[in-house]
Amino acid sequence: MKNQRILFARTPSGLPVPEDFSSDEVAVPAPGDGQFLSRTIWLSLDPYYRNVMKGSQIYADRLKPGDPMVGETVAQVIESRHHGFEPGDYVAVRNGWQGYALSDGSGVRKLNPAQAPLSTALGVLGMPGLTGYAGLIYLGEPKPGQTVVVSAATGPVGSTAGQVARLVGARAVGIAGSDDKCRYAVDELGYATCVNYRNGELRAQLKAACPDGIDVYFDNVGGDTLAAVLANLALHARVVLCGMIEAYSMDKPPAGPFLGPIVGARATMKGLVVYDWVHKQPEFFRVVSNWIREGSFRYREDIADGLANAPGAFCRLMRGGNFGKALVRVAPESI
Amino acid sequence: MKNQRILFARTPSGLPVPEDFSSDEVAVPAPGDGQFLSRTIWLSLDPYYRNVMKGSQIYADRLKPGDPMVGETVAQVIESRHHGFEPGDYVAVRNGWQGYALSDGSGVRKLNPAQAPLSTALGVLGMPGLTGYAGLIYLGEPKPGQTVVVSAATGPVGSTAGQVARLVGARAVGIAGSDDKCRYAVDELGYATCVNYRNGELRAQLKAACPDGIDVYFDNVGGDTLAAVLANLALHARVVLCGMIEAYSMDKPPAGPFLGPIVGARATMKGLVVYDWVHKQPEFFRVVSNWIREGSFRYREDIADGLANAPGAFCRLMRGGNFGKALVRVAPESI
Repeated sequence: MKNQRILFARTPSGLPVPEDFSSDEVAVPAPGDGQFLSRTIWLSLDPYYRNVMKGSQIYADRLKPGDPMVGETVAQVIESRHHGFEPGDYVAVRNGWQGYALSDGSGVRKLNPAQAPLSTALGVLGMPGLTGYAGLIYLGEPKPGQTVVVSAATGPVGSTAGQVARLVGARAVGIAGSDDKCRYAVDELGYATCVNYRNGELRAQLKAACPDGIDVYFDNVGGDTLAAVLANLALHARVVLCGMIEAYSMDKPPAGPFLGPIVGARATMKGLVVYDWVHKQPEFFRVVSNWIREGSFRYREDIADGLANAPGAFCRLMRGGNFGKALVRVAPESI
Repeated sequence: MKNQRILFARTPSGLPVPEDFSSDEVAVPAPGDGQFLSRTIWLSLDPYYRNVMKGSQIYADRLKPGDPMVGETVAQVIESRHHGFEPGDYVAVRNGWQGYALSDGSGVRKLNPAQAPLSTALGVLGMPGLTGYAGLIYLGEPKPGQTVVVSAATGPVGSTAGQVARLVGARAVGIAGSDDKCRYAVDELGYATCVNYRNGELRAQLKAACPDGIDVYFDNVGGDTLAAVLANLALHARVVLCGMIEAYSMDKPPAGPFLGPIVGARATMKGLVVYDWVHKQPEFFRVVSNWIREGSFRYREDIADGLANAPGAFCRLMRGGNFGKALVRVAPESI
């Protein structure tokens, strides 16, 4: 039995390409005392990996060339010398981009496959979902009837923020990069409307879509999109800065938007890091899984098959080519 | 008796020059029913006038070429057909850049010359002081022992914010544009230290001056200074955006700083407009005038003599050439 691994080869220059990764096969390790071995089933692909690949100070992970890529996974315990885990247990664990890994159980969450599909632990019911939920509710603080704009509106974070906005009585307006995504945002996710930023001047499109101004902006992208939103803020608006996908692929941070509109609107801008909100996970899980069961909350997955396809799928994600939560099916759920 | 007036001639191109103003003399008007006539004593010079000169949407004032320049003044009532005001009363009133003006009393505050020097109603005990006080206390929310950085540290807004920070137990660090100003900031205003942004890389200077990071930043200038501060934020920092002097003299808003550090620091950025805080004026006046009487709070004025010198003094202010609250002595306090 071999352990297939995808390795960090080099820091990408700009957007990542498959050549920024390499691969190898090594022996599957054996668990030591207090450890368990698990086989990876689902690998989550998330834009922040690009930041890890340049050693951003925000993240604790540091990669050296030749290290296996880090990342969130769903896995099944196959051998255990840890009293809390037994073979057969399903877990959310950071195995990274490899078929097998050891864990000492820290930060590991057990999953009940009868409660929700296993893959949702990486998306709608995992960190991306928590990001969208806690960021919108606790930093955005939308009030019923207010206008909430969400960029990357159909991604795992954005689709959560947008649907939560709707389900607490606000008017959700999406920003996405294709007419397909916009149609999906309105028809399936329940956005009141969605603007395609490739269809002409975003600032004017937002003005038309948000005639009373924007009360809450959940920002997943930064850059020009953020500037266009700032030009349309309502008084006392809240801007939640969550991700800056654009900047992840740049060597030098780009300039930001002119902040004059923040003063004019008496707005508040807040930085969101999901790890600060892990204490809200039980609430989030209860609320959102209930909405999913009721049928009022949808999610979508964009699945690549096999670990060898992970680099290509990640590069596509960083170019906005995914449609839904990007996942790699590393192995079948049952063996 | 003639009314000397300084008029708005044209929107400046970049930094204002004296030629952007003109002047004339007209008859002194007579008050109608419910009006009073006052003679201007002190004219306040404030950077936001530059924004009014380009018709910024933030401000209610709109100027057409040939209109008298607007502005805050201290004046004395000389003729009244308003039941609330009598000849001899001193008032804070928006007479603008002219020797005499009519008022219907709205927005006018009576001044007691025995309580505080009249000119302070335009500076330390006026709008600039309220801006520094309310912005720092209610948006910045400094805690004892925290590090508070203030740009334009010796100006009327900054010197208030910095001294209030010290007087509520925080460590105040100034940013100013000359060694003289920095010395004054430390020796007279009680800043723990002050960095001169002309003395080398500001980011590194701030890192040395704020080894535990910056908890509160009171921003009076925007631009590169703001970017240098963002690079040194402490966790959960508050950034109060108050003025963007640099941008006032630009036709097109400049780009802003990269906002990634806001996310990394889980910081909050808030826009401050002083007119939202007028309800705090009694508290502010009580607190700060008490500190002034105790001798724990200082202020400084930079006085030009005569209305004809107002354009030149304003142009100097916009180049950072003032040292203390910029005022024009239009006429003697007593006649």
